[in-house]
Amino acid sequence: MATLNSYVNIDEVEREAKKDYIDRHSPFVYCQDSGTKGEKFPVKVVVGKEYTHPDDFDHYIAEVKLFDGETQIAGSCHFAGQNGGQGEKGNLEVVFNVVPQKNMKLRALAYCTKHGIWQSDEVKVAVA
Amino acid sequence: MATLNSYVNIDEVEREAKKDYIDRHSPFVYCQDSGTKGEKFPVKVVVGKEYTHPDDFDHYIAEVKLFDGETQIAGSCHFAGQNGGQGEKGNLEVVFNVVPQKNMKLRALAYCTKHGIWQSDEVKVAVA
Amino acid sequence: MATLNSYVNIDEVEREAKKDYIDRHSPFVYCQDSGTKGEKFPVKVVVGKEYTHPDDFDHYIAEVKLFDGETQIAGSCHFAGQNGGQGEKGNLEVVFNVVPQKNMKLRALAYCTKHGIWQSDEVKVAVA
Amino acid sequence: MATLNSYVNIDEVEREAKKDYIDRHSPFVYCQDSGTKGEKFPVKVVVGKEYTHPDDFDHYIAEVKLFDGETQIAGSCHFAGQNGGQGEKGNLEVVFNVVPQKNMKLRALAYCTKHGIWQSDEVKVAVA
Repeated sequence: MATLNSYVNIDEVEREAKKDYIDRHSPFVYCQDSGTKGEKFPVKVVVGKEYTHPDDFDHYIAEVKLFDGETQIAGSCHFAGQNGGQGEKGNLEVVFNVVPQKNMKLRALAYCTKHGIWQSDEVKVAVA
Repeated sequence: MATLNSYVNIDEVEREAKKDYIDRHSPFVYCQDSGTKGEKFPVKVVVGKEYTHPDDFDHYIAEVKLFDGETQIAGSCHFAGQNGGQGEKGNLEVVFNVVPQKNMKLRALAYCTKHGIWQSDEVKVAVA
Repeated sequence: MATLNSYVNIDEVEREAKKDYIDRHSPFVYCQDSGTKGEKFPVKVVVGKEYTHPDDFDHYIAEVKLFDGETQIAGSCHFAGQNGGQGEKGNLEVVFNVVPQKNMKLRALAYCTKHGIWQSDEVKVAVA
Repeated sequence: MATLNSYVNIDEVEREAKKDYIDRHSPFVYCQDSGTKGEKFPVKVVVGKEYTHPDDFDHYIAEVKLFDGETQIAGSCHFAGQNGGQGEKGNLEVVFNVVPQKNMKLRALAYCTKHGIWQSDEVKVAVA
Protein backbone atom coordinates (compact mmCIF):
# COMPACT_ATOMS: atom_id res chain seq x y z
CA MET A 1 0.00 0.00 0.00
CA ALA A 2 1.08 3.52 -0.71
CA THR A 3 0.58 4.48 2.89
CA LEU A 4 2.96 6.89 4.49
CA ASN A 5 5.50 5.39 6.86
CA SER A 6 6.76 7.51 9.72
CA TYR A 7 10.12 7.50 11.39
CA VAL A 8 10.24 6.01 14.85
CA ASN A 9 13.18 6.25 17.20
CA ILE A 10 15.15 3.10 16.49
CA ASP A 11 16.52 2.99 20.03
CA GLU A 12 13.05 1.81 20.97
CA VAL A 13 13.02 -0.90 18.32
CA GLU A 14 14.12 -4.36 19.34
CA ARG A 15 15.00 -6.25 16.18
CA GLU A 16 18.17 -5.32 14.29
CA ALA A 17 16.56 -5.94 10.87
CA LYS A 18 13.69 -3.68 11.82
CA LYS A 19 16.03 -0.92 13.05
CA ASP A 20 17.91 -1.10 9.75
CA TYR A 21 14.67 -1.11 7.71
CA ILE A 22 13.29 1.96 9.45
CA ASP A 23 16.52 3.93 9.63
CA ARG A 24 17.71 3.47 6.06
CA HIS A 25 14.37 4.64 4.63
CA SER A 26 13.84 7.63 6.88
CA PRO A 27 14.77 11.13 5.80
CA PHE A 28 16.46 13.30 8.43
CA VAL A 29 16.25 17.09 8.38
CA TYR A 30 19.32 19.08 9.43
CA CYS A 31 19.18 22.87 9.79
CA GLN A 32 19.56 25.74 12.24
CA ASP A 33 16.66 26.15 14.63
CA SER A 34 16.18 29.80 13.65
CA GLY A 35 16.51 31.84 10.48
CA THR A 36 16.10 35.35 9.12
CA LYS A 37 13.08 36.45 7.11
CA GLY A 38 13.90 36.78 3.41
CA GLU A 39 17.36 35.26 3.71
CA LYS A 40 18.65 31.99 2.34
CA PHE A 41 18.27 29.18 4.85
CA PRO A 42 20.00 25.87 4.08
CA VAL A 43 18.13 22.68 4.89
CA LYS A 44 20.00 19.41 4.47
CA VAL A 45 18.05 16.20 4.06
CA VAL A 46 19.86 12.87 4.43
CA VAL A 47 18.13 9.53 3.95
CA GLY A 48 19.24 7.11 6.66
CA LYS A 49 21.42 7.90 9.67
CA GLU A 50 23.04 4.78 11.05
CA TYR A 51 22.26 2.47 8.14
CA THR A 52 22.69 2.81 4.39
CA HIS A 53 20.19 2.14 1.62
CA PRO A 54 20.74 0.06 -1.54
CA ASP A 55 21.19 1.91 -4.80
CA ASP A 56 20.20 -0.80 -7.28
CA PHE A 57 18.28 -0.39 -10.50
CA ASP A 58 15.11 -1.82 -8.99
CA HIS A 59 15.59 -0.48 -5.49
CA TYR A 60 16.70 3.05 -4.81
CA ILE A 61 15.64 6.34 -3.27
CA ALA A 62 13.97 8.21 -6.14
CA GLU A 63 12.61 11.29 -4.50
CA VAL A 64 12.91 13.64 -1.54
CA LYS A 65 10.37 16.30 -0.69
CA LEU A 66 10.59 19.11 1.82
CA PHE A 67 7.33 20.31 3.37
CA ASP A 68 6.50 23.31 5.53
CA GLY A 69 3.28 22.17 7.17
CA GLU A 70 1.14 20.75 4.36
CA THR A 71 2.86 22.76 1.63
CA GLN A 72 5.80 21.39 -0.32
CA ILE A 73 8.55 23.99 -0.56
CA ALA A 74 11.16 22.02 -2.50
CA GLY A 75 11.86 18.56 -3.82
CA SER A 76 14.49 16.50 -5.55
CA CYS A 77 14.55 13.48 -7.82
CA HIS A 78 17.27 10.89 -8.06
CA PHE A 79 18.17 7.95 -10.23
CA ALA A 80 19.44 4.42 -9.68
CA GLY A 81 23.21 4.20 -9.37
CA GLN A 82 23.66 7.87 -8.57
CA ASN A 83 23.06 7.91 -4.84
CA GLY A 84 25.32 5.39 -3.17
CA GLY A 85 26.93 4.89 -6.54
CA GLN A 86 26.09 2.12 -9.00
CA GLY A 87 25.19 -0.75 -6.79
CA GLU A 88 26.89 0.50 -3.66
CA LYS A 89 24.83 1.35 -0.62
CA GLY A 90 24.80 4.91 0.62
CA ASN A 91 22.96 7.79 2.22
CA LEU A 92 21.35 10.11 -0.25
CA GLU A 93 21.92 13.74 0.62
CA VAL A 94 20.56 16.98 -0.78
CA VAL A 95 20.66 20.60 0.41
CA PHE A 96 17.78 22.92 -0.35
CA ASN A 97 18.20 26.64 0.26
CA VAL A 98 14.80 27.95 1.14
CA VAL A 99 13.97 31.61 1.83
CA PRO A 100 11.52 31.67 4.74
CA GLN A 101 9.06 34.48 5.43
CA LYS A 102 7.68 33.11 8.69
CA ASN A 103 8.14 30.29 11.18
CA MET A 104 8.37 26.89 9.53
CA LYS A 105 7.42 23.37 10.48
CA LEU A 106 9.72 21.33 8.27
CA ARG A 107 9.24 17.71 7.41
CA ALA A 108 10.93 15.66 4.73
CA LEU A 109 9.51 12.76 2.75
CA ALA A 110 11.61 10.15 0.97
CA TYR A 111 10.36 7.68 -1.60
CA CYS A 112 11.97 4.24 -1.98
CA THR A 113 11.03 2.44 -5.19
CA LYS A 114 10.32 -0.77 -3.27
CA HIS A 115 9.15 0.34 0.15
CA GLY A 116 7.08 3.44 -0.44
CA ILE A 117 7.01 6.86 1.16
CA TRP A 118 8.62 7.71 4.49
CA GLN A 119 8.34 10.90 6.48
CA SER A 120 10.73 12.46 8.98
CA ASP A 121 9.97 13.93 12.33
CA GLU A 122 8.88 17.57 12.24
CA VAL A 123 11.55 20.23 12.77
CA LYS A 124 10.42 23.66 13.98
CA VAL A 125 12.29 26.74 12.74
CA ALA A 126 11.76 30.22 14.24
CA VAL A 127 11.96 32.96 11.61
CA ALA A 128 12.23 36.66 12.50
CA MET B 1 1.70 18.28 8.77
CA ALA B 2 2.67 16.41 5.67
CA THR B 3 0.62 13.46 6.75
CA LEU B 4 -1.24 11.45 4.18
CA ASN B 5 -4.98 12.01 3.99
CA SER B 6 -7.17 9.15 2.85
CA TYR B 7 -10.42 9.25 0.96
CA VAL B 8 -13.50 8.40 2.95
CA ASN B 9 -16.92 7.79 1.47
CA ILE B 10 -18.56 11.20 1.60
CA ASP B 11 -22.02 9.66 1.92
CA GLU B 12 -21.00 8.91 5.47
CA VAL B 13 -19.89 12.47 6.14
CA GLU B 14 -22.39 14.84 7.70
CA ARG B 15 -21.22 18.36 7.03
CA GLU B 16 -21.42 19.74 3.50
CA ALA B 17 -18.14 21.70 3.85
CA LYS B 18 -16.41 18.53 4.97
CA LYS B 19 -17.83 16.48 2.08
CA ASP B 20 -16.58 19.14 -0.34
CA TYR B 21 -13.15 19.29 1.32
CA ILE B 22 -12.64 15.53 1.17
CA ASP B 23 -14.08 14.97 -2.29
CA ARG B 24 -12.30 17.76 -4.14
CA HIS B 25 -8.89 16.66 -2.87
CA SER B 26 -9.27 12.94 -3.41
CA PRO B 27 -7.92 11.23 -6.51
CA PHE B 28 -10.19 8.62 -8.10
CA VAL B 29 -8.82 5.74 -10.16
CA TYR B 30 -10.81 4.61 -13.21
CA CYS B 31 -9.78 1.52 -15.19
CA GLN B 32 -10.92 -1.93 -16.29
CA ASP B 33 -10.80 -4.54 -13.55
CA SER B 34 -8.65 -6.86 -15.67
CA GLY B 35 -5.88 -6.44 -18.21
CA THR B 36 -3.52 -8.42 -20.41
CA LYS B 37 0.12 -9.03 -19.53
CA GLY B 38 2.46 -6.87 -21.62
CA GLU B 39 -0.32 -4.81 -23.18
CA LYS B 40 -1.10 -1.16 -22.71
CA PHE B 41 -3.61 -0.63 -19.92
CA PRO B 42 -5.11 2.86 -19.54
CA VAL B 43 -5.61 4.18 -16.02
CA LYS B 44 -7.44 7.46 -15.64
CA VAL B 45 -7.00 9.49 -12.49
CA VAL B 46 -9.41 12.34 -11.76
CA VAL B 47 -9.09 14.58 -8.70
CA GLY B 48 -12.52 15.17 -7.18
CA LYS B 49 -15.77 13.51 -8.19
CA GLU B 50 -18.76 15.57 -7.08
CA TYR B 51 -16.89 18.74 -6.19
CA THR B 52 -14.26 20.80 -8.01
CA HIS B 53 -10.94 22.12 -6.75
CA PRO B 54 -9.60 25.70 -7.04
CA ASP B 55 -6.90 26.33 -9.58
CA ASP B 56 -5.35 29.50 -8.16
CA PHE B 57 -1.70 30.45 -8.10
CA ASP B 58 -1.35 29.65 -4.43
CA HIS B 59 -3.79 26.75 -4.33
CA TYR B 60 -3.84 24.06 -6.97
CA ILE B 61 -3.29 20.37 -7.54
CA ALA B 62 0.40 20.12 -8.39
CA GLU B 63 0.99 16.40 -8.62
CA VAL B 64 -0.61 13.03 -9.17
CA LYS B 65 1.14 9.74 -8.54
CA LEU B 66 0.04 6.24 -9.46
CA PHE B 67 1.22 3.41 -7.23
CA ASP B 68 1.08 -0.36 -7.61
CA GLY B 69 1.45 -1.46 -4.01
CA GLU B 70 4.34 0.55 -2.58
CA THR B 71 5.96 1.18 -5.97
CA GLN B 72 5.21 4.27 -8.02
CA ILE B 73 4.56 3.31 -11.64
CA ALA B 74 3.79 6.75 -13.08
CA GLY B 75 3.25 10.33 -12.04
CA SER B 76 2.30 13.71 -13.40
CA CYS B 77 2.98 17.31 -12.48
CA HIS B 78 0.70 20.25 -13.05
CA PHE B 79 0.83 24.02 -12.77
CA ALA B 80 -1.47 26.75 -11.46
CA GLY B 81 -4.03 27.91 -14.01
CA GLN B 82 -3.71 24.83 -16.18
CA ASN B 83 -6.10 22.46 -14.46
CA GLY B 84 -9.47 24.09 -14.08
CA GLY B 85 -8.13 26.92 -16.18
CA GLN B 86 -6.68 30.15 -14.80
CA GLY B 87 -8.67 30.75 -11.70
CA GLU B 88 -11.61 28.54 -12.57
CA LYS B 89 -12.33 25.48 -10.50
CA GLY B 90 -12.11 22.09 -12.11
CA ASN B 91 -11.26 18.42 -11.86
CA LEU B 92 -7.73 17.61 -12.87
CA GLU B 93 -7.58 14.54 -15.10
CA VAL B 94 -4.69 12.51 -16.47
CA VAL B 95 -4.48 9.13 -18.24
CA PHE B 96 -1.46 6.92 -17.73
CA ASN B 97 -0.98 3.93 -19.99
CA VAL B 98 0.82 1.35 -17.94
CA VAL B 99 1.96 -2.05 -19.20
CA PRO B 100 1.31 -4.56 -16.44
CA GLN B 101 3.16 -7.86 -16.03
CA LYS B 102 1.15 -9.16 -13.08
CA ASN B 103 -1.86 -8.35 -10.91
CA MET B 104 -1.85 -4.77 -9.68
CA LYS B 105 -3.09 -2.97 -6.59
CA LEU B 106 -3.49 0.54 -7.87
CA ARG B 107 -3.71 3.61 -5.72
CA ALA B 108 -3.42 7.25 -6.69
CA LEU B 109 -2.03 10.12 -4.66
CA ALA B 110 -2.79 13.77 -5.31
CA TYR B 111 -0.94 16.73 -3.85
CA CYS B 112 -2.71 20.04 -3.17
CA THR B 113 -0.35 22.95 -2.55
CA LYS B 114 -2.36 24.01 0.50
CA HIS B 115 -3.82 20.83 1.91
CA GLY B 116 -1.15 18.20 1.42
CA ILE B 117 -1.21 14.67 0.06
CA TRP B 118 -4.37 12.62 -0.45
CA GLN B 119 -4.66 8.98 -1.41
CA SER B 120 -7.43 7.12 -3.20
CA ASP B 121 -8.98 3.83 -2.33
CA GLU B 122 -7.10 0.80 -3.67
CA VAL B 123 -8.25 -0.65 -7.01
CA LYS B 124 -7.38 -4.28 -7.75
CA VAL B 125 -6.61 -5.27 -11.35
CA ALA B 126 -6.30 -8.91 -12.46
CA VAL B 127 -3.61 -9.37 -15.11
CA ALA B 128 -3.27 -12.57 -17.15
CA MET C 1 25.86 16.93 -23.83
CA ALA C 2 22.46 17.76 -22.44
CA THR C 3 21.56 19.58 -25.62
CA LEU C 4 18.04 19.34 -26.92
CA ASN C 5 17.47 17.02 -29.85
CA SER C 6 14.69 17.84 -32.29
CA TYR C 7 12.54 15.51 -34.32
CA VAL C 8 13.27 15.40 -38.02
CA ASN C 9 11.09 13.70 -40.60
CA ILE C 10 12.55 10.22 -40.85
CA ASP C 11 11.45 9.88 -44.47
CA GLU C 12 14.31 12.21 -45.22
CA VAL C 13 16.80 10.13 -43.25
CA GLU C 14 18.83 7.59 -45.19
CA ARG C 15 20.19 5.11 -42.67
CA GLU C 16 17.81 2.67 -41.01
CA ALA C 17 19.65 2.82 -37.65
CA LYS C 18 19.39 6.60 -37.70
CA LYS C 19 15.65 6.53 -38.54
CA ASP C 20 15.09 4.16 -35.64
CA TYR C 21 17.21 6.28 -33.27
CA ILE C 22 15.35 9.48 -34.10
CA ASP C 23 11.86 8.03 -34.20
CA ARG C 24 11.95 5.99 -31.00
CA HIS C 25 13.13 8.97 -28.94
CA SER C 26 10.78 11.57 -30.37
CA PRO C 27 7.56 12.50 -28.64
CA PHE C 28 4.52 12.94 -30.89
CA VAL C 29 1.61 15.17 -29.93
CA TYR C 30 -1.91 14.05 -30.86
CA CYS C 31 -4.91 16.33 -30.32
CA GLN C 32 -7.74 18.17 -32.08
CA ASP C 33 -6.64 21.27 -33.94
CA SER C 34 -9.18 23.42 -32.12
CA GLY C 35 -10.64 23.56 -28.64
CA THR C 36 -13.06 25.50 -26.47
CA LYS C 37 -11.94 28.07 -23.93
CA GLY C 38 -12.23 26.75 -20.37
CA GLU C 39 -13.09 23.20 -21.42
CA LYS C 40 -11.07 20.05 -20.98
CA PHE C 41 -8.87 19.40 -24.01
CA PRO C 42 -7.13 16.01 -24.21
CA VAL C 43 -3.57 15.94 -25.50
CA LYS C 44 -2.00 12.55 -26.07
CA VAL C 45 1.77 12.24 -26.18
CA VAL C 46 3.34 9.06 -27.52
CA VAL C 47 7.10 8.49 -27.62
CA GLY C 48 8.06 6.89 -30.94
CA LYS C 49 5.79 6.27 -33.91
CA GLU C 50 7.21 3.57 -36.16
CA TYR C 51 9.85 2.26 -33.78
CA THR C 52 9.75 1.24 -30.13
CA HIS C 53 12.09 2.24 -27.31
CA PRO C 54 13.81 -0.08 -24.82
CA ASP C 55 12.46 -0.17 -21.29
CA ASP C 56 15.51 -1.43 -19.42
CA PHE C 57 16.70 -0.41 -15.99
CA ASP C 58 19.52 1.70 -17.40
CA HIS C 59 17.73 2.86 -20.51
CA TYR C 60 14.15 4.07 -20.50
CA ILE C 61 11.96 7.08 -21.09
CA ALA C 62 11.79 8.78 -17.69
CA GLU C 63 9.90 11.96 -18.40
CA VAL C 64 7.49 13.68 -20.75
CA LYS C 65 6.75 17.40 -20.66
CA LEU C 66 4.06 19.34 -22.46
CA PHE C 67 4.81 22.97 -23.30
CA ASP C 68 2.64 25.79 -24.61
CA GLY C 69 5.25 28.10 -26.06
CA GLU C 70 7.97 28.41 -23.43
CA THR C 71 5.68 27.50 -20.53
CA GLN C 72 5.29 23.94 -19.29
CA ILE C 73 1.61 23.12 -18.81
CA ALA C 74 1.89 19.48 -17.71
CA GLY C 75 4.44 16.72 -17.30
CA SER C 76 4.74 13.07 -16.41
CA CYS C 77 7.41 10.85 -14.93
CA HIS C 78 7.93 7.18 -15.61
CA PHE C 79 10.02 4.34 -14.30
CA ALA C 80 12.06 1.49 -15.79
CA GLY C 81 9.99 -1.58 -16.59
CA GLN C 82 6.69 0.27 -16.57
CA ASN C 83 6.56 1.62 -20.10
CA GLY C 84 7.08 -1.21 -22.54
CA GLY C 85 6.91 -3.57 -19.62
CA GLN C 86 9.93 -4.94 -17.77
CA GLY C 87 12.50 -5.28 -20.45
CA GLU C 88 10.13 -5.26 -23.42
CA LYS C 89 10.27 -2.44 -25.90
CA GLY C 90 7.29 -0.17 -26.27
CA ASN C 91 5.86 3.26 -26.93
CA LEU C 92 5.24 5.25 -23.81
CA GLU C 93 1.89 6.99 -23.91
CA VAL C 94 0.25 9.55 -21.64
CA VAL C 95 -2.86 11.73 -21.97
CA PHE C 96 -2.95 15.15 -20.35
CA ASN C 97 -6.24 17.00 -20.13
CA VAL C 98 -5.41 20.67 -20.28
CA VAL C 99 -7.95 23.49 -20.01
CA PRO C 100 -6.91 26.16 -22.52
CA GLN C 101 -7.84 29.85 -22.27
CA LYS C 102 -6.30 30.96 -25.56
CA ASN C 103 -4.58 29.60 -28.67
CA MET C 104 -1.80 27.17 -27.87
CA LYS C 105 1.48 26.20 -29.47
CA LEU C 106 2.02 22.74 -28.09
CA ARG C 107 5.31 20.94 -28.03
CA ALA C 108 6.29 17.83 -26.13
CA LEU C 109 9.68 16.92 -24.69
CA ALA C 110 10.76 13.39 -23.82
CA TYR C 111 13.79 12.42 -21.76
CA CYS C 112 15.65 9.16 -22.38
CA THR C 113 18.03 8.19 -19.58
CA LYS C 114 20.79 7.44 -22.09
CA HIS C 115 20.17 9.78 -25.00
CA GLY C 116 18.97 13.02 -23.46
CA ILE C 117 16.06 15.31 -24.21
CA TRP C 118 14.05 15.25 -27.44
CA GLN C 119 11.42 17.70 -28.59
CA SER C 120 8.47 17.20 -30.93
CA ASP C 121 7.34 19.40 -33.75
CA GLU C 122 5.07 22.25 -32.69
CA VAL C 123 1.31 21.70 -32.90
CA LYS C 124 -0.93 24.76 -33.15
CA VAL C 125 -4.35 24.67 -31.46
CA ALA C 126 -7.01 27.35 -32.05
CA VAL C 127 -9.02 28.08 -28.89
CA ALA C 128 -12.25 30.10 -28.98
CA MET D 1 9.13 27.63 -28.34
CA ALA D 2 10.41 25.12 -25.86
CA THR D 3 13.86 25.31 -27.36
CA LEU D 4 16.83 25.12 -25.09
CA ASN D 5 18.58 28.41 -24.34
CA SER D 6 22.29 28.33 -23.62
CA TYR D 7 24.33 30.57 -21.40
CA VAL D 8 26.58 33.03 -23.16
CA ASN D 9 29.26 35.10 -21.46
CA ILE D 10 27.45 38.33 -20.59
CA ASP D 11 30.67 40.34 -20.84
CA GLU D 12 30.26 39.94 -24.56
CA VAL D 13 26.67 41.14 -24.51
CA GLU D 14 26.07 44.83 -25.18
CA ARG D 15 22.63 45.66 -23.88
CA GLU D 16 22.04 45.76 -20.13
CA ALA D 17 18.53 44.29 -20.40
CA LYS D 18 19.91 41.41 -22.43
CA LYS D 19 22.73 40.76 -19.93
CA ASP D 20 20.17 40.66 -17.14
CA TYR D 21 17.84 38.36 -19.11
CA ILE D 22 20.57 35.85 -19.88
CA ASP D 23 22.28 35.89 -16.51
CA ARG D 24 19.22 35.59 -14.29
CA HIS D 25 17.95 32.53 -16.17
CA SER D 26 21.23 30.67 -16.46
CA PRO D 27 22.18 27.95 -14.02
CA PHE D 28 25.79 27.96 -12.82
CA VAL D 29 27.54 24.80 -11.64
CA TYR D 30 29.98 25.07 -8.73
CA CYS D 31 32.09 22.09 -7.66
CA GLN D 32 35.66 20.85 -7.26
CA ASP D 33 37.37 19.94 -10.53
CA SER D 34 38.23 16.47 -9.27
CA GLY D 35 36.56 13.88 -7.07
CA THR D 36 37.03 10.39 -5.65
CA LYS D 37 35.32 7.36 -7.09
CA GLY D 38 32.45 6.18 -4.87
CA GLU D 39 32.62 9.18 -2.53
CA LYS D 40 30.08 11.93 -2.05
CA PHE D 41 30.79 14.88 -4.32
CA PRO D 42 28.83 18.09 -3.70
CA VAL D 43 27.63 20.01 -6.74
CA LYS D 44 26.03 23.38 -6.13
CA VAL D 45 23.76 24.88 -8.76
CA VAL D 46 22.80 28.54 -8.53
CA VAL D 47 20.44 30.22 -10.99
CA GLY D 48 21.80 33.65 -11.92
CA LYS D 49 25.14 35.12 -10.94
CA GLU D 50 25.09 38.90 -11.18
CA TYR D 51 21.34 39.35 -11.54
CA THR D 52 18.39 37.95 -9.62
CA HIS D 53 15.23 36.30 -10.94
CA PRO D 54 11.63 37.14 -9.99
CA ASP D 55 9.81 34.74 -7.71
CA ASP D 56 6.21 35.55 -8.56
CA PHE D 57 3.29 33.15 -8.84
CA ASP D 58 3.31 33.29 -12.63
CA HIS D 59 7.03 33.67 -13.07
CA TYR D 60 9.55 31.62 -11.13
CA ILE D 61 12.27 29.01 -11.48
CA ALA D 62 10.42 25.71 -11.16
CA GLU D 63 13.07 23.13 -11.86
CA VAL D 64 16.79 22.45 -11.91
CA LYS D 65 18.34 19.38 -13.47
CA LEU D 66 21.90 18.12 -13.26
CA PHE D 67 23.22 16.13 -16.22
CA ASP D 68 26.37 14.08 -16.70
CA GLY D 69 26.61 14.02 -20.47
CA GLU D 70 23.14 13.13 -21.73
CA THR D 71 22.10 11.38 -18.51
CA GLN D 72 20.30 13.21 -15.73
CA ILE D 73 21.88 12.39 -12.38
CA ALA D 74 19.73 14.57 -10.11
CA GLY D 75 17.04 17.20 -10.23
CA SER D 76 15.05 19.52 -8.02
CA CYS D 77 11.66 21.17 -8.16
CA HIS D 78 10.69 24.48 -6.67
CA PHE D 79 7.56 26.52 -6.09
CA ALA D 80 6.54 30.16 -6.45
CA GLY D 81 7.40 32.28 -3.44
CA GLN D 82 9.96 29.83 -2.08
CA ASN D 83 13.05 30.84 -4.02
CA GLY D 84 13.63 34.54 -3.61
CA GLY D 85 10.84 34.53 -1.10
CA GLN D 86 7.22 35.46 -1.87
CA GLY D 87 7.54 38.07 -4.53
CA GLU D 88 11.14 39.03 -3.80
CA LYS D 89 13.80 38.41 -6.40
CA GLY D 90 16.58 35.99 -5.65
CA ASN D 91 19.01 33.35 -6.82
CA LEU D 92 17.72 29.84 -6.42
CA GLU D 93 20.35 27.53 -5.00
CA VAL D 94 20.47 23.77 -4.49
CA VAL D 95 23.26 21.34 -3.59
CA PHE D 96 23.21 17.81 -4.95
CA ASN D 97 25.60 15.25 -3.51
CA VAL D 98 26.38 12.85 -6.31
CA VAL D 99 28.60 9.77 -5.98
CA PRO D 100 30.67 9.56 -9.18
CA GLN D 101 32.19 6.36 -10.55
CA LYS D 102 34.05 7.92 -13.46
CA ASN D 103 34.88 11.30 -15.02
CA MET D 104 31.86 13.54 -15.38
CA LYS D 105 30.78 16.24 -17.78
CA LEU D 106 28.33 18.20 -15.69
CA ARG D 107 25.76 20.55 -17.05
CA ALA D 108 22.77 22.08 -15.29
CA LEU D 109 19.41 23.01 -16.77
CA ALA D 110 17.00 25.50 -15.20
CA TYR D 111 13.37 25.98 -16.16
CA CYS D 112 11.67 29.38 -15.85
CA THR D 113 7.88 29.22 -16.06
CA LYS D 114 7.83 32.12 -18.53
CA HIS D 115 11.08 31.85 -20.44
CA GLY D 116 11.69 28.16 -20.89
CA ILE D 117 14.72 25.94 -20.36
CA TRP D 118 18.28 27.24 -19.97
CA GLN D 119 21.48 25.24 -19.86
CA SER D 120 24.81 26.04 -18.22
CA ASP D 121 28.26 25.66 -19.63
CA GLU D 122 29.75 22.21 -19.25
CA VAL D 123 31.98 21.54 -16.24
CA LYS D 124 34.47 18.68 -16.45
CA VAL D 125 35.25 16.69 -13.30
CA ALA D 126 38.11 14.19 -13.12
CA VAL D 127 37.22 11.16 -10.98
CA ALA D 128 39.87 8.66 -9.79
